[in-house]
Amino acid sequence: MKTSFSIRKAEATDMSSVLNLIQELATFEKEPDAVIVTEQDLIQHGFGQDSLFTCFVAEVGHQIVGMALGYPRYSTWKGPTLHLEDLIVTNSFKGKGIGRALFSAFIAFGHEQGVKRIEWAVLDWNTSAIDFYTRNGALVFDDWQVVQMDEKAIHQFISKSQN
Amino acid sequence: MKTSFSIRKAEATDMSSVLNLIQELATFEKEPDAVIVTEQDLIQHGFGQDSLFTCFVAEVGHQIVGMALGYPRYSTWKGPTLHLEDLIVTNSFKGKGIGRALFSAFIAFGHEQGVKRIEWAVLDWNTSAIDFYTRNGALVFDDWQVVQMDEKAIHQFISKSQN
Repeated sequence: MKTSFSIRKAEATDMSSVLNLIQELATFEKEPDAVIVTEQDLIQHGFGQDSLFTCFVAEVGHQIVGMALGYPRYSTWKGPTLHLEDLIVTNSFKGKGIGRALFSAFIAFGHEQGVKRIEWAVLDWNTSAIDFYTRNGALVFDDWQVVQMDEKAIHQFISKSQN
Repeated sequence: MKTSFSIRKAEATDMSSVLNLIQELATFEKEPDAVIVTEQDLIQHGFGQDSLFTCFVAEVGHQIVGMALGYPRYSTWKGPTLHLEDLIVTNSFKGKGIGRALFSAFIAFGHEQGVKRIEWAVLDWNTSAIDFYTRNGALVFDDWQVVQMDEKAIHQFISKSQN
């Protein structure tokens, strides 16, 4: 049975549903307690002055069942690029082409903006996602590693530097 | 012999030197022909309206010998973060503490901005950089892979979607 859905740009009132999707992905990625962002944060950061991201949502009827969220980045080799931070479809609506439609909307958005590259990250065990991306012309690089300093590490680094 | 240097925020007039450093890094990373950005691009993207990045430079006398360049990102789990795109010291001035000073200036900048995380990527064979980062409290993740669609792949994807 075909599921009818539509894709549109998110509005501030969608952020409650979007946060539920973010939480669902964190649980899927085995980090259920990692989400500290609130609905108010998402509204302020996405729809206030100097918006930090652009979000698309997928709707079935009036239910938000998926989202794609990203923001500009900059390559010192190529110029302006776009980063896809999250692409999420709620579990019960997977396998219906909604993820592909969200992905297409995001790529079309990057194309309209004239960016030189669209980029994202994927967990190496998520082979179905990797297959989907490579089938659609993306390159997967296994020689880059992601490095992060969290708030605590930043504070410790600053404290040490001042001693 | 100690080399005296200073760190400051870059100005548009520094972009010619910054581009030389970018080209030097591309050569070090075995991709000498990958840089298509021009000095004019860097001036427009970094110092025009809606600046896409912030850059710090290291100076010895009036010579630019290093740079750190980054921009905001957004974590749907944590909130606003900062990305370090490039940290470069010209080869003849390596080993004098200039890289560490640029890195410190960038971390301090993130701390002032109150970001939840500072992140970047490193090539897995660049073990001296990885050692430096982990010594300073960063975590290196080897389970994330970087995925990219370049302009050509974006165009092909859009063309196929329209058929």
